[in-house]
Amino acid sequence: MIFQMARRAERMNPSVIREILKVTEQPGIISLAGGLPSPDTFPVEAMRAASEKVLRDTPREALQYAASEGYAPLREWVAAHLAAQGLQVDATQVLITTGSQQGLDLVGKVLIDAGSGVAVERPTYLGALQAFAPYEPEVVSVDCDDDGPLPAGLSVARGARFLYLLPNFQNPSGRCMSAPRRAQVSDAARALGLPIVEDNPYGDLWFDHEPPPPLAARWPEGTVYLGSFSKVLAPGLRLGYVVAPPALCPKLLQAKQAADLHTPGFNQRVVHEVIRNGFLNEHVPTIRARYQAQRDAMRAALERHMPAGCHWNVPVGGMFFWVELPEGTDATALLPHAVKQGMAFVPGAAFFADHAKANTLRLSFVTVAPDEIERGIRMLALALQEQHA
Amino acid sequence: MIFQMARRAERMNPSVIREILKVTEQPGIISLAGGLPSPDTFPVEAMRAASEKVLRDTPREALQYAASEGYAPLREWVAAHLAAQGLQVDATQVLITTGSQQGLDLVGKVLIDAGSGVAVERPTYLGALQAFAPYEPEVVSVDCDDDGPLPAGLSVARGARFLYLLPNFQNPSGRCMSAPRRAQVSDAARALGLPIVEDNPYGDLWFDHEPPPPLAARWPEGTVYLGSFSKVLAPGLRLGYVVAPPALCPKLLQAKQAADLHTPGFNQRVVHEVIRNGFLNEHVPTIRARYQAQRDAMRAALERHMPAGCHWNVPVGGMFFWVELPEGTDATALLPHAVKQGMAFVPGAAFFADHAKANTLRLSFVTVAPDEIERGIRMLALALQEQHA
Repeated sequence: MIFQMARRAERMNPSVIREILKVTEQPGIISLAGGLPSPDTFPVEAMRAASEKVLRDTPREALQYAASEGYAPLREWVAAHLAAQGLQVDATQVLITTGSQQGLDLVGKVLIDAGSGVAVERPTYLGALQAFAPYEPEVVSVDCDDDGPLPAGLSVARGARFLYLLPNFQNPSGRCMSAPRRAQVSDAARALGLPIVEDNPYGDLWFDHEPPPPLAARWPEGTVYLGSFSKVLAPGLRLGYVVAPPALCPKLLQAKQAADLHTPGFNQRVVHEVIRNGFLNEHVPTIRARYQAQRDAMRAALERHMPAGCHWNVPVGGMFFWVELPEGTDATALLPHAVKQGMAFVPGAAFFADHAKANTLRLSFVTVAPDEIERGIRMLALALQEQHA
Repeated sequence: MIFQMARRAERMNPSVIREILKVTEQPGIISLAGGLPSPDTFPVEAMRAASEKVLRDTPREALQYAASEGYAPLREWVAAHLAAQGLQVDATQVLITTGSQQGLDLVGKVLIDAGSGVAVERPTYLGALQAFAPYEPEVVSVDCDDDGPLPAGLSVARGARFLYLLPNFQNPSGRCMSAPRRAQVSDAARALGLPIVEDNPYGDLWFDHEPPPPLAARWPEGTVYLGSFSKVLAPGLRLGYVVAPPALCPKLLQAKQAADLHTPGFNQRVVHEVIRNGFLNEHVPTIRARYQAQRDAMRAALERHMPAGCHWNVPVGGMFFWVELPEGTDATALLPHAVKQGMAFVPGAAFFADHAKANTLRLSFVTVAPDEIERGIRMLALALQEQHA
């Protein structure tokens, strides 16, 4: 080999989910694996009108190099949107990113040294583990219950560079932290001098009532907040944002400049054009209603088909069911059987930084319609029977 | 400070160019500073038609999550385009990136350890230095003449992870390496076991004849090649690509997944729709003709206005003149005088990894029209007079 790899390259691995997605993209497979929003929710007509308007009114600006910070009116929109959720920030604290995945990469780049501690929930979002891995952290998992991280469990994170959290409808567990738990965790982190990285891609996808205010609202100077347009508009635009305490903004901006100069200005302007007059106030409720119906369909299908000994909580928003199979069942070994039946899921083991629970799996209820959900869960139950036969 | 920064954050700095651009974005300033393509070259009508077609025919695919490798037909287009330039690669070696700046970041991420040697030209592209800096390399500069790196000079790069080169109309020097020099440098690098990272954002912008084939064609298994759509279509789309030897592709792909999952699929499909039927064969010659006329205008203006003791080579493509002022003149100190006169440039010092030549500056001839170029250069000459007065 002519090329000598950096040591950090050893920490990089193919995304388990993306590898599974490749297998399950075979036509005819009902995939409950990916975290893919329903394409029926993509506001195609609004996108078309906005693209045309941007290319008619400001083509030279939209197609030229642009500021690394992002398109100023979009940054202002984000600040106003967050204020409505109880998080007061200035638009100058908002950095537009190429999807919130890039926000995770930039946070890792600026905050993680080789050997630094990084604390995560058990389980946690796989994409975050992948974003942080090249910076060679020592990842520690905080024990969690159905309400999120246990405040007493934070002591394992002492000295870590930050605690990474998904308080709203967590990927993969689907859980939503209560207001009291948010306060406890934020206060415990503050007492430890442990910064928080709060990731919120799913917060707008609530069903019955809005989730509590973000942790960042309680401890703004110690919390980095990440948001995304992927779940409320469309992921193919790759548009997200990081909101950071002012002390952190210059280095995040420099990391952003080095990473891709800026997020496509065309996309930023099109999205701003779509949302600037309150579009999401009309649009997001239609997504919520759809996903709630699909959540109900999956709950009913799970209750109907899954054998005794399986457990799941019913998510009150977001995209995922998290299923615990009977002790001793290996979800990774189950997957080929499921694919043979005609459906796919993600084995839960991928979402653990340590002490993986092999008997867990993640199911997305947002990608396919209720009748396919019903069929997919039936296939999953058949695969379980087959594996145990 | 609650946050502890990673050590690499010390290596990050605000982009000198972007800071200058902010100053010079005042209305009325003739900016020859940025490497901004003329917005008159942006194919707005083709973009509009392509956006509409993509959102009409494949909205669900264009707006959904997509493969990290990039949109397959676009990867195939790139492979075919490179074959026409003498570089035979398979489409599976092509990774679509969020601008070629991201390609530089990914290359750095995969290949640079703290303290690794990285060899660059003297001077070199500032954005590459910024992309590599967070990975904490020891940068060594290779001595160059008007034909690029001196083959004998490569010995300083022994043991480096790679040699970073811009063979075509280099940013900032404007020089184009001859075919014999390419062969000498490629062979010398190979003899040293020194991989090459070949960056080619400007190669299509030739005036009288095409540049020689890429260095990658001579040593494909030892060369990473970077390309971009920023200069032939529009930079605001942030669309570039990395072509790597197969042994390097998996790690680059994993780094890409971690960095932003994938480059916006909408942008990839729109660009592919624009270019798939030979559009660039008609479009790029119009850019060349325009830039050649602007190059001529700048040459004439430099000859007309600049005082004795200033030197420049006339670029045969690309976007930049590189000017050496009389010995003892400090271009950084000159800049405020120039801005006061009403024009801006980039002081050359920013482009040196070491031993900066303070009496150099870079002028872009592509951003503004010939009459403004004439006025801008006159102002530059007046600023020089004023500084020496």
